[in-house]
Amino acid sequence: MPRQVTAFSNATVKRLRSLRDKKHRRDEGLFLAEGLRILTEARDSGRLPEILAFSAEGARHPLAAEIIAAAEARGAEAIEVPADLLSKMSGKDNPQMLLGAYRQPDTALEPIDRSAAPLWIVAQALRDPGNIGTILRTGDAVGAGGLILIDDCADPYSVEAVRASMGAVFTQQVATARWPEFVAWLRAGTGQLVGTSLRAIHDYLDAAYDQPCFLLIGNEQQGLPADYEAECDLLVKIPMAGRADSLNAAMATAVMAFAVRASWR
Amino acid sequence: MPRQVTAFSNATVKRLRSLRDKKHRRDEGLFLAEGLRILTEARDSGRLPEILAFSAEGARHPLAAEIIAAAEARGAEAIEVPADLLSKMSGKDNPQMLLGAYRQPDTALEPIDRSAAPLWIVAQALRDPGNIGTILRTGDAVGAGGLILIDDCADPYSVEAVRASMGAVFTQQVATARWPEFVAWLRAGTGQLVGTSLRAIHDYLDAAYDQPCFLLIGNEQQGLPADYEAECDLLVKIPMAGRADSLNAAMATAVMAFAVRASWR
Repeated sequence: MPRQVTAFSNATVKRLRSLRDKKHRRDEGLFLAEGLRILTEARDSGRLPEILAFSAEGARHPLAAEIIAAAEARGAEAIEVPADLLSKMSGKDNPQMLLGAYRQPDTALEPIDRSAAPLWIVAQALRDPGNIGTILRTGDAVGAGGLILIDDCADPYSVEAVRASMGAVFTQQVATARWPEFVAWLRAGTGQLVGTSLRAIHDYLDAAYDQPCFLLIGNEQQGLPADYEAECDLLVKIPMAGRADSLNAAMATAVMAFAVRASWR
Repeated sequence: MPRQVTAFSNATVKRLRSLRDKKHRRDEGLFLAEGLRILTEARDSGRLPEILAFSAEGARHPLAAEIIAAAEARGAEAIEVPADLLSKMSGKDNPQMLLGAYRQPDTALEPIDRSAAPLWIVAQALRDPGNIGTILRTGDAVGAGGLILIDDCADPYSVEAVRASMGAVFTQQVATARWPEFVAWLRAGTGQLVGTSLRAIHDYLDAAYDQPCFLLIGNEQQGLPADYEAECDLLVKIPMAGRADSLNAAMATAVMAFAVRASWR
């Protein structure tokens, strides 16, 4: 039976709130996801929260009630809190009816079965958690297997990234690796490494993409380092028509990923 | 000769700051843009700020100094302020060296010459200013003529939208209109209205796109209203491979816009 909690100082409330900080997420191995849509996506992917806070509205909603009951049956701690407390916990003005803390999956490269999907997205030094979440969502939509984060990227388990992923953080595999480690893993099997570069000769629409294709996206400001580009099996460019010289990193990823998929029809 | 200002209570500082609010932008007909890259984009598009604040670093930078001198020669008010005051004015943690207030252009439909570009983006009830800015940037990259905002959209001249546009707010035409007004204008000339809908039969890769193509994107949550879809000359879908059922609105716009351009090669 869920406890009703109204105090901001309650230990479970404080513990959930603390997961907005990367340090606490790392120490606890947990991350936050909020909202019925994303928690339903998680449940449909076989994932339930270990801690759960919900509003009275959440308790009455049939889908939310199912998630609460399923999580409690697996031993989750569930608390009912006032709606304003829930929005304070997630830092969102527009309160959701559910907030869950989930176990962070293993983000090592080794468990990845590259043959499980024709396309994998590899992002290097992406700084914006919103971009990471959006790229996860795009990966889900395009049928990618997952997202491999190279070097120092924003945390894919931050509240902003999880929110922007719209649940894809639960459906896409996520791995993190340094560049040499990634290259060693990649070259130990099949796979074409494709980089996007304004210096490339090949138009992205004319290139031949192999499966599995590893689509490499660089940092928002700097793009890919020259030696990372040199490691690519194929470098392509998206010709820019306008006066500005670039696409947002998440946009470039979406355009490339859907073009690669289209080339396989 | 620019004045040096250090007080947060200075009238020009307060006036610039006030432009973060939509009401003040509307009353003054001005909007804020920040950073050397975006202000250079503006200058290259023939636009100079009417009010300009810059840091000591800005005064020393050759490109920034050019913009300051050009704006002053046209009668702009320019003030030199401490870096921390500059970041307080724009609301950004990471301070830029320049902040300008620009005249908002006319956003009526009538001045738009639809034959000036093969592609125009039309967005309906988009709520996220970041999406609007990103779509402007994508429009610039893909060679669209501009962005037509239908019904109640976020303000394309908000700080967030201008920032996400990376200067494309100066290179893309921007118009705002209610739906009946837009339809009347559209049907008074040539142009194919293309909507994206999960209910569509045609795969976006198999459709025939005419010029000028008006690519219609719906609200982030609801998509397009049924009667707006009914008005379209062509409804296409981007098939979704994943478990989640959608792309972010700005991503869908980028994927569609580049696919339309690719179909014309």
